[in-house]
Amino acid sequence: MAVESTRARSLTHVDPAEVPLQAALDALADPVRRSILRDLAVHDEWTRACGTFDLPVKKATASHHFSVLRAAGLIEQRDEGARRLNRLRRSEFDSAFPGLLSATIDRDDD
Amino acid sequence: MAVESTRARSLTHVDPAEVPLQAALDALADPVRRSILRDLAVHDEWTRACGTFDLPVKKATASHHFSVLRAAGLIEQRDEGARRLNRLRRSEFDSAFPGLLSATIDRDDD
Repeated sequence: MAVESTRARSLTHVDPAEVPLQAALDALADPVRRSILRDLAVHDEWTRACGTFDLPVKKATASHHFSVLRAAGLIEQRDEGARRLNRLRRSEFDSAFPGLLSATIDRDDD
Repeated sequence: MAVESTRARSLTHVDPAEVPLQAALDALADPVRRSILRDLAVHDEWTRACGTFDLPVKKATASHHFSVLRAAGLIEQRDEGARRLNRLRRSEFDSAFPGLLSATIDRDDD
């Protein structure tokens, strides 16, 4: 189980209130990341594993995008067996950046 | 006056409604551009010339930033003699991207 422990430890999360505006905007200024967020916004929390997103990028790139979203306080992740599940941190992020997430993902022009 | 005409013709403006979300986010995801927008937000329209902003960049870079803001539908510019005056297109941009500008510049953490 040592491997799983190491993997779990890598899932560091930050309080969105501690995220600089620049990091939040950088995270949102990418169409693949916005598509992940939109997908999470319309599904129940913790129901989407990373591998279930239909993304136009390779797996390593997708992992990077999830990592950027986590570092920006936009998503929470947890490992469940071989699956890495995701949750949109909507209320926490909205508290830190009022209106920013809605202004960015509540659109369909991407 | 041919030179002035050429200079004036270079000031093309776009309707914020025609600006892609990606271009709007890219324009906002820069601290120098946000400082220009914040400055414009607290001054009367058409009172600030490009040369009057206190920016930590060279003149050519500053010109580029103003150009990006204009192309994203965030500012309107007009030449008055040797001065290039600016106006924040707050209401037009807000109509196209509700809440995005406020979420980005109504903060002081930059």
